[in-house]
Order: sequence, then structure tokens, then C-alpha cells
Amino acid sequence: MKTKLTEIPGSILAPQGFRAGGVFCDIKRLGTGKGSEKGRKRDLALIVSEAPATVAGMFTTNQACAAPVKVCAKRVKQGCAQAVVINSGNANACTGKQGRQDALEMVRFTESALALPPGSALVGSTGRIGVAMPMDNVRVGIIETAALLGSTADHAAQAAEAIMTSDTRPKQIAVEFKLGGQVVRIGGICKGAGMIQPGMSATGGRPAAVPLHATMLCFITSDAAVEPKVLRAALKEAVATSFNRITVDGDMSTNDTVLVLANGLAGNRKFTPRTADFGLFQAALSHVCLALAKMIVRDGEGVSRIVTVRVNGARSFADADAAARAVANSPLVKTSWHGGDPNWGRILAAVGYSPATIVEEKVDVGYSAPGSHKVLWSLKRGQPTKAAFKTLCAAVAPKEFDLHINLNLGRAGALMYAADLTEDYVEFNKGDVSDPTSLGG
Amino acid sequence: MKTKLTEIPGSILAPQGFRAGGVFCDIKRLGTGKGSEKGRKRDLALIVSEAPATVAGMFTTNQACAAPVKVCAKRVKQGCAQAVVINSGNANACTGKQGRQDALEMVRFTESALALPPGSALVGSTGRIGVAMPMDNVRVGIIETAALLGSTADHAAQAAEAIMTSDTRPKQIAVEFKLGGQVVRIGGICKGAGMIQPGMSATGGRPAAVPLHATMLCFITSDAAVEPKVLRAALKEAVATSFNRITVDGDMSTNDTVLVLANGLAGNRKFTPRTADFGLFQAALSHVCLALAKMIVRDGEGVSRIVTVRVNGARSFADADAAARAVANSPLVKTSWHGGDPNWGRILAAVGYSPATIVEEKVDVGYSAPGSHKVLWSLKRGQPTKAAFKTLCAAVAPKEFDLHINLNLGRAGALMYAADLTEDYVEFNKGDVSDPTSLGG
Repeated sequence: MKTKLTEIPGSILAPQGFRAGGVFCDIKRLGTGKGSEKGRKRDLALIVSEAPATVAGMFTTNQACAAPVKVCAKRVKQGCAQAVVINSGNANACTGKQGRQDALEMVRFTESALALPPGSALVGSTGRIGVAMPMDNVRVGIIETAALLGSTADHAAQAAEAIMTSDTRPKQIAVEFKLGGQVVRIGGICKGAGMIQPGMSATGGRPAAVPLHATMLCFITSDAAVEPKVLRAALKEAVATSFNRITVDGDMSTNDTVLVLANGLAGNRKFTPRTADFGLFQAALSHVCLALAKMIVRDGEGVSRIVTVRVNGARSFADADAAARAVANSPLVKTSWHGGDPNWGRILAAVGYSPATIVEEKVDVGYSAPGSHKVLWSLKRGQPTKAAFKTLCAAVAPKEFDLHINLNLGRAGALMYAADLTEDYVEFNKGDVSDPTSLGG
Repeated sequence: MKTKLTEIPGSILAPQGFRAGGVFCDIKRLGTGKGSEKGRKRDLALIVSEAPATVAGMFTTNQACAAPVKVCAKRVKQGCAQAVVINSGNANACTGKQGRQDALEMVRFTESALALPPGSALVGSTGRIGVAMPMDNVRVGIIETAALLGSTADHAAQAAEAIMTSDTRPKQIAVEFKLGGQVVRIGGICKGAGMIQPGMSATGGRPAAVPLHATMLCFITSDAAVEPKVLRAALKEAVATSFNRITVDGDMSTNDTVLVLANGLAGNRKFTPRTADFGLFQAALSHVCLALAKMIVRDGEGVSRIVTVRVNGARSFADADAAARAVANSPLVKTSWHGGDPNWGRILAAVGYSPATIVEEKVDVGYSAPGSHKVLWSLKRGQPTKAAFKTLCAAVAPKEFDLHINLNLGRAGALMYAADLTEDYVEFNKGDVSDPTSLGG
């Protein structure tokens, strides 16, 4: 009997009872000028469950949060939904009352097109900030997608493409595991690229202690039977160890959204927290979120190197987190990663100015292959080791490596999945003012 | 009778009774490889007062602060000094016990070379982190400089050059004003370029509320007669509104140091806070610090545009400061400045994720010429204005402009002198790993 978690082909349509689709309805052209240039990339997607599904969501804690986030966060509280409409090319952010009306019309029009009950559709948007949603195009897109819905890998791929903005490739994953003898599946798609340092909470309100700072959108489906409260707890934990641990540029978006719909068609018996089944479900959901989060960092704007910053020996989690974020977001550290330069001076300076308590004479800095415990230390107790510069350069030459920082003050740890800072990032984001548009939220 | 503040030619040798000089003693070559490449740039300077001077200092609040900062901060507490020895090319940071011994030997050797009493010399260092100071070179440099000291503009220029690292030009200013009929002068030199977002305090300890985040060194001389306590108060205020309001890359250095030596030779009567004379002195010192701070931003690594971020209408200074820093350090905002893109969406996203309280529907964003009150608004109460995109582009096209953000929630304000983020910054800072060195503190 298979008791382990297995990655399987596909994504949001791997679980039973879901259909999806995506079309091009000219939101991207209107919004960003990219649609016409790069060919007719899809810009509107629907994800639909056959049966009413339990739902949980996590949203940006940016105070300038977009209209679709406000509408979606409110609806998710009901704990039940059946469809999600998503568009790229226009974030419907900073669009005032009209924006809220448009976001509401998107969910209502979707319900009507799919003959679903009121309140059963959710919405996610990404793209240009501050421009009214081209609702005529959106309505056409919803009608066309509703007519094309299906459950093949191609349909999932259409949706994965339709949510992309500056992403260079679609991001998808699916896993399979067993709960009490029943095969359960979880699948997901996401988009990222820039404005990436999510700090999401279930309500979209300000978090208590977590430092803030993507547009990232993530849509997860499952055929697990799970209560809303249980699903919320599992998603909160999964996001805390995945999307809320990544940074591309330290900028937090107005539109970050993660949604999970679980329709119960797998027929497993329901479970509660602190049970073995919950552990299995949590592990699977966390695996999906972490895999998707890492895909976002790898496909970040202009990114050439991925660094997992592992801080240990901190006095508290808050200290470990603050030190890891300071290093992960320091322009000087990030440019040194781009240059393949094992510059521990910049790393020590960044932990030194972070809010974390450090004692310079106690700090260790080192490098390893991803996930390896075999660390090459460049700094021990604040002093350079005898490791040769060439050896250190070789340790930071791979496209992915782990950076280990031990503060040697306590037992708390935190990690961040970070990216380097390249000329390409600057080139991409300085924009093209001959085209009065910009990807934003 | 002249009662106003006047900028005059020169810098640290404009006030009476100071001598200075700078030499090349090969610290830069050993430290960074830059000395030999770019010609024999000076790397050691001395500034000496004829008479014992009142001294005040402000230092980096980075917990990984360099040995010279520790030595200097301790000595400054005495309130009296007569000489400063400064080197570039080696920051003497993260150098442990040896570093502290070297920093101490630098001041003691200087005292001995100048025949000054013990405890009368101060020290500042900038350059490579984590490498032992080449003390043989330093000793030769101190002896050579001591023999060459003079009070001409050329001597001041030698010192201004010797403290430079990645700076493309020396930074100098001098002013003259009257205190009770006596002509008083203040002059200063500084260096900056990268690792620039100082957050300095008088003790080098963690500040209470000011967000943290350069190597910048600044040395100010004056012939004013002023008590240590009064000088400290004036310097604290001057730094709060100048060096602590600038950011190039948001990285705070291990070595930031500002020192003022006032030798009293102007013969003015002493003054206390809250007197007219204090006001005049404060205004002059603040003018010198602000002018030097702005020179640092203008000469920041790869900088092509300077933006003064002016946040008003905040509930508290802490909120205004946090919002201004979030905008000034957002990679997405900074790249849009580089591109000449009036992207208010990124600005609103940055204030939205800052710790400042904002209400999206109340935020105004606009542009003006530096210091002008004639603002072109792009966003009013969270909504785009009717300002044409081309008009907005023209407003952000100049090399320097002001960005106005009104949160419309209260009466507090703060400003930051910020720089754009360019490909040249990344290119410069990704380093050259064929040369195992790097400028750091």
C-alpha cells in the first residue's frame, strides 16, 4: 500500500471533479501592450468544481489591497465556493468604487454564466495598477471560457497560462497520497515574477509580527473532504513555510492571493487537527505550496541565482526571520550573489543592521549545496576561516546554493528563499515610457 | 553687517587653526586592487587642530560595527580631541581583537607622530571588510602625512581625496557666519558612494525608533567656541536632518562616522541651546551636513536620478518616516525612476506595505521641481488624476525632482533624499571575483 506523498503529472485538474479553461479576451493588450506584441497570450481563466467545495484563502497584507482581494477575502470567510475567475493584464488595484463594482460583477457574471448559486464564485486579478477593468472584454472572456471548460491537461495548461504576467513559464504541480485508504489529490498553479515578497494573512489585515513585504497568485484544488476550519489551519501553515518565505525584490504586491478549493469527491473520512490524517494532508498541501513558491523565485524577473538563506542560533524566531530577510533583501548581498562573490562582509553588515540581536564575534557564515549539511564556512565566530577564496567562489558558483548564518545566541531559526539582483531585473523594471502602462499588482 | 550664512571656498581648512594632508601609502592597493589600477590615489589623511578642540561624533548603529568606530566612539565621549587619522582601502571591520589593537595603534601612533597628548587622536576607516589593516603601510603613511601637513586648499583636497573609495569625486564645503560679531567658519569633507542608508547615533548603540540602514565618513571642522554638550546636541540635530535622511541602496555600513572638531579660535562667546547664537550655529552646521549628504546621494554608485521623497499628512513622524523609507528603498520604485516612469502604482504599493498606517482612498501622489510647491498630482485620494501621461513623464524626466506623498491622515511629515536603481549599480556591485577583494565598510 502506498502511504507516501507522490508527485503526479498535471495540476489543478488532477483531483477529481474540477474543470478549467482559459482564453484571450484582450485584457492584456489593453492593459499592458504585451498581448499584441508577444502573440495572443491567454488572459482570463476559470476554475470550476462540480460540487460545492470547502475553501480557504490567504491574501496580501498590503494596505493598498486590490478590489478583487477585498471581494475574495470577504467571500472566502463563508468557507464554501465552487468557481474562481482570474484575469491577468489588469490588477483592478487602486481603482476605487468602480473597481469594487467591477470585481463584484466578475464573480456575479461568472456565477450566472456557470449557473451557480450567488456567492459561490471567487476572483483573482493581476497586472496593471490603476486602470479600470475592461469589463466588456471580461464578460466576453467569461462566456467563452465557460463554453470551453474541460478536465484535460490542456485545459489546466490554458488556465496556468492565462494567469501569467512577466512569468516566462507556467507553474504547475500535483500530488497524490492516501487518507484512510482513499486516494486524495492536490494540484496547483501559480504566477509570480516581480513584486515578490508576500506577507499574507487569512483576512488580509496586518500581521502581528511578521515583517511585510509579490504579485503572486496561486490556485490549489483538492478532492479531499475537509472542514473549512481545518483547511484554513492547513493553508495558513503551508503559506507560512512557503509563499511567505520567498522574496525576489522585497516589494509586496497589492494583489497576492492563495486559494484552495477542496470538493470532497475523494470520499475520505473527515479529519481534525493533530490527527495522522491531518498530518498527511498538511504535508501534501505544504509540499504543493513550497514547490510552487520555489518556482516563483526561480522564474523571478532577471533572476540568475537562487539562494536559500538559513539563519540559525537566533534568540527568537522574530530575530531569525529579521536577519534572514535583511540578508535576502540587501541590494549589496544580492548583487554579490549575481557576481558569484562570496562576500561575507556584506552579509555580516546586513545582519548587523537588521532588527535582530547579533554579537559580531559569534556569527558564523557558510555555504552548502541545496539542503546539504556539509557546510563550507567562510566566517567562524566573526573571523574569516582559512577557506581559500577560490574554494569559496566555487561554493557560490552554482545556480542554487544554501547560505548558512549561525548567530550562536539561541535556538531559533528561519529561512528565506531568495534571488539575486541583476542588470536584467533593472532593465525589465525600469519600464518603457513609450508605452504608458506597467505591470503592477 | 553680514548676519547671514554664506558658502565660502574651501572645506576643513577654511576655519582658523587647522592643518591637513593626505598621502598614498598603498593601503588601497593591498585592500582593493583599485590603487594600482586607477593610479596612486591617496589613502591616508590627517586632520589636525592647533589647539585642543571640542569634539562630537555620530556613528553607525550597525551591530557589526568596525574597530575604528568602537575606538572613536569611546574617545569622543571625552568631548575633546586634536587630530583625526583616516584611511581608505581597508575598513578594519570584522577584524576581531587584532582590529581593535590596530585601530588603537593608529590613534596612538598619530599622537606620537604629532607630539600630541594621549587620547587626543581619533580614527576613521573605510574600504575592504575582514582583512587585517596593513599596519606597516599605515605607520609610514602617518609619518609622511605628518611631515607634509599644511593649511592650503591643496592640503584639504589631499585629505578629501584620501578618504574616497568608490566616490567619483571629492566632496567638500565651507560656510561662514557671525556669532556676536565674530566671524565663525565651519568646513567639511565626506565620502560615500555605496552601502548608504546611515542610521547614526551618538553612542553607536541601537536607536529607539529610527529605522536602520552606508559607508559614509564625514569630518567637519570649525573655529567656533562651543561646549561639548552643546556641540553634541547641534550635531545630533544636523545628522538627523541630513545623513540619516539619505539612502542610496538601503544598506547600512559597519563604519559610518561623522566627527566635528571645534577649536574655539574664532573667539566667539560661548552659547547654550535655545539662544539666538545656538540657532545660528545649528543652522550653519545643518547646512554643511545637508550639503555633504546630498553630495553623497548625487555621487552614489550608478546613480542617475535623485529624488526627494516628501511624505506629509501622516499620523506620526514614525509613520511618515517609514512610508518615505519604504518608497525610497523599493527596487520597483527605484527602477521606475531610472526609467523615467511616473509609476504611482508602485509608490502606492510601497506605502501600502510599509509599517505606516495608510488609507488607500486618501493618498495623494505628485511631482515637483526640487523644493517647489507647484506640484503636479498623478493621484488624488487614491484615484488617478486627469494629468496626461506625457506630462507626468516630463515631471520625472529631470535628473532631480521631488516626489510628494500626502497620506491625508494627520499632520506629521518626513523626507528622504533617495537615488534610483540602475544597471550600473548592479554591474559595479556584483564585484570582480578574479580580484578577491571588495569595498565593504
